[in-house]
Amino acid sequence: MQDPSLEGRRVYGRAELRRLLEPQSVALVGASANPASLGGRTLANLAAFPGRLYAVNPKSAMVGERQAWPSVSALPEAPDCVVLAIPQESVEAVVAECAQRGAGAVIVLASGYAELEQAEGAEAQARLLALARPAGMRIVGPNCVGVANRAHGLHAAFAEFSPSVLEPGRRIGLVAQSGALGLSLSHGAERGMAISHVLTCGNSCDVDVADYVAALAEDPGCDVIALTFEGLADPQRLLDAARRARAAGKRIAVCKLGLSEAGRAAARFHTHTAAGDPAMWQRLFREGGMVQVERIEALMETAAFLAKAPAALAHAASGSAARPSAPVGSGSASVDAASASGPGVAIVSGSGGTGILALDAAARHGVPTPQPQSATTDRLRATVPAFGSPRNPCDATAQATRNPESLLECADAMLADPGYGALVIPWGRSQPPRLLAGLGTLSQRHGKPICVVWMSQRLEGPAGEEVQRHPQLALFHSLDACMAALAAWLAPDAEGSGLLDHA
Amino acid sequence: MQDPSLEGRRVYGRAELRRLLEPQSVALVGASANPASLGGRTLANLAAFPGRLYAVNPKSAMVGERQAWPSVSALPEAPDCVVLAIPQESVEAVVAECAQRGAGAVIVLASGYAELEQAEGAEAQARLLALARPAGMRIVGPNCVGVANRAHGLHAAFAEFSPSVLEPGRRIGLVAQSGALGLSLSHGAERGMAISHVLTCGNSCDVDVADYVAALAEDPGCDVIALTFEGLADPQRLLDAARRARAAGKRIAVCKLGLSEAGRAAARFHTHTAAGDPAMWQRLFREGGMVQVERIEALMETAAFLAKAPAALAHAASGSAARPSAPVGSGSASVDAASASGPGVAIVSGSGGTGILALDAAARHGVPTPQPQSATTDRLRATVPAFGSPRNPCDATAQATRNPESLLECADAMLADPGYGALVIPWGRSQPPRLLAGLGTLSQRHGKPICVVWMSQRLEGPAGEEVQRHPQLALFHSLDACMAALAAWLAPDAEGSGLLDHA
Repeated sequence: MQDPSLEGRRVYGRAELRRLLEPQSVALVGASANPASLGGRTLANLAAFPGRLYAVNPKSAMVGERQAWPSVSALPEAPDCVVLAIPQESVEAVVAECAQRGAGAVIVLASGYAELEQAEGAEAQARLLALARPAGMRIVGPNCVGVANRAHGLHAAFAEFSPSVLEPGRRIGLVAQSGALGLSLSHGAERGMAISHVLTCGNSCDVDVADYVAALAEDPGCDVIALTFEGLADPQRLLDAARRARAAGKRIAVCKLGLSEAGRAAARFHTHTAAGDPAMWQRLFREGGMVQVERIEALMETAAFLAKAPAALAHAASGSAARPSAPVGSGSASVDAASASGPGVAIVSGSGGTGILALDAAARHGVPTPQPQSATTDRLRATVPAFGSPRNPCDATAQATRNPESLLECADAMLADPGYGALVIPWGRSQPPRLLAGLGTLSQRHGKPICVVWMSQRLEGPAGEEVQRHPQLALFHSLDACMAALAAWLAPDAEGSGLLDHA
Repeated sequence: MQDPSLEGRRVYGRAELRRLLEPQSVALVGASANPASLGGRTLANLAAFPGRLYAVNPKSAMVGERQAWPSVSALPEAPDCVVLAIPQESVEAVVAECAQRGAGAVIVLASGYAELEQAEGAEAQARLLALARPAGMRIVGPNCVGVANRAHGLHAAFAEFSPSVLEPGRRIGLVAQSGALGLSLSHGAERGMAISHVLTCGNSCDVDVADYVAALAEDPGCDVIALTFEGLADPQRLLDAARRARAAGKRIAVCKLGLSEAGRAAARFHTHTAAGDPAMWQRLFREGGMVQVERIEALMETAAFLAKAPAALAHAASGSAARPSAPVGSGSASVDAASASGPGVAIVSGSGGTGILALDAAARHGVPTPQPQSATTDRLRATVPAFGSPRNPCDATAQATRNPESLLECADAMLADPGYGALVIPWGRSQPPRLLAGLGTLSQRHGKPICVVWMSQRLEGPAGEEVQRHPQLALFHSLDACMAALAAWLAPDAEGSGLLDHA
């Protein structure tokens, strides 16, 4: 249970979390040479830290080939960040020692706090905060798996978050209250996502997801934020953090857990924070200009899309009275209720069937798919074979797979049409490099996003990874997830579009 | 455009399609030694055919190192199945020759028929049928990619459908009107799906998806049917075929394209068949006991689940007046509107967050997730750590990943509870072999399905593939797809459950 006194504090920003997320020195209490142990796994993850790393172990002067220190008090400096890979019963004394020594932050991995049914757990958790707060020391957790900040070389976690190739312009800062989800989502790095941070907070007795969002908003090492959480002691802090992100031009994709009644009840048991009702959260996300994602499997691809899509989400976060709207991906828009106002989405496919599937998905999410202007149709007709279709969706036929230039010509024609704000290409096989390069150029030239939707049941492979790593092209594994993201991206403003409001 | 005279004919069954799908002899007209050509690719796919294979090429006595025949008329026997890998303008004469020679079936790959805007295309297609019908010869296509029947060693297609390891009990017969979707979905074999057949029919001038379903119903080489299509000349034939499948104890998962208004219009352009309105199709699927899948990416996993799930779908196909219901996966059930009647779904997870996500997905699809009986709670409490949760969802904590026996004990307790008809396990990492073996044994002992839902953004890998290849355990990549499938599977009957009727 979070300390009620927390509810009034301001959100921590980058400055308040700098010693945690950008430390010059890290101490690991419970460091172990046993690679299977909690302390051994955490030490292995920390080994590449380029700053000063201190192994603390009262039982041994060496941990493997590394010098060990008997205690935090005995360290030659006040460490910025201390990771406690020790049993619950030892945590409180060491937290007190860290506060005394002047540490900047403590990450508590141990469980056995507010997530317990017994009041003792919540009380123990409150005592940790009471020790830290007067010293100005941050606490992460308890009951968490740790954090990683790749640009800083920091992997202060026992979970093996997947390493990532960081490419500016599409770096995703991942914020997950749940350590298990943080780990699972971090695996996206293995198929080409640039994940700059993985920040978990578990019971969130002090630092919570709102603080992480605010810190990432101010960190130039991250371009977009992916957020998933169960509950917050003070939802207003998340709104403050979201406004900082907007001010920095960073978008936020959010998947909120526990929106069903049963889910809310389970969340109360799990983290003892009020899960809130869905309408409140949807209103808050809308006010903060956040893009709500219904299904967790679409969170990272939606974030990656938001990082790559040109221009600003200029429409949201306009004020206090925005109506609640359906979350992205809920498919709750009336079929065919798409508004005719505003730009629509063009579809270019290599088969008739996938184009029709794309239309169906667009209809489920209220995305308009108008027909092209006559000049566009003329260009398409000059390229598409007679057995294809020069309409929207444009069936460029299997010719498109043999002759990338024909697909590029269709894409250029559609993107040049003022009726369209984005292009969707259902695809599922290897692309010649010149096709991807050509599509990237077209996206930049027209200032409109291109989404490639992977239709193959071969879920991974170099073909999809090349799209994921591309600086302009977005990859989705679901037409519905793609159309839901485009619905949010195309909505002209928070209040008036109607695109997200068919409940 | 399909010949109106077809609308009255009976559905073709296995007997009527035997020379097509289980041929003793196959001729390839347009066989080529150029591996990049249509005829060369098709020849490569046919090369492993264990029966008599005839290369036909009027320009050469040899195709590579294979003897070639100058024409179908010159073959030493009337071939069961003839594949035409030749340009559209040559097709009609060869179809006439095949009919004359007594061939059993002709597969026409060429485009340029009813999918054209001009009436000439539909007329040319009608002439093909007029040539074949009096001779009792079947036509597949035109404008299709061909068929494969793996148990028979037949890959009569230019598309490279992925080969599959066939294991009785979970063999999926895939029927796709669209060749592109047939190909994309066949790739599921590469991650462990047992795909026995890939049957495409393109323009469907003669053989259509209903005929394929009826043939698979009667083919012991297939256990379950995955179906996707745009339109049918005679929907009643599909109902007849579905009833044959039910009589054979085979379930059908169906993803219908073109259910949105825009999608229907595009389908009319694409295959010139009436797409029908969504309510009509939902009623028909319900009457036929078919499980409708909304999102194409869930079709194959839903079919694989239906093949593995114990017992019969005893509830559906009860009569003529079933109400239309929302398709599986539409998420249109009111949140928390789950009926309390009938068995619910138990959830056992290794983290609190994934359990809550599972509850949310269950609510979206109207799946009840009741709390366990007190005896079950007692068993869970004896196993789950104090920082976990002995409820539904059961958070067995990360301990479950280190100690598979604790997860198996929780699973056994849940499956023994009469309140549950199925168990869902969100998961995302490697499993010790004894865990999968133990879960399989539990599923069999209790006669209830276990679904593993893959939560990792590492979409593929040996861990998921082991689940996919397991004879009892079902794998999903989406909690929503899993819960949608369970909603259909648990519904006690077509009319009264209410589970699928919250529109």
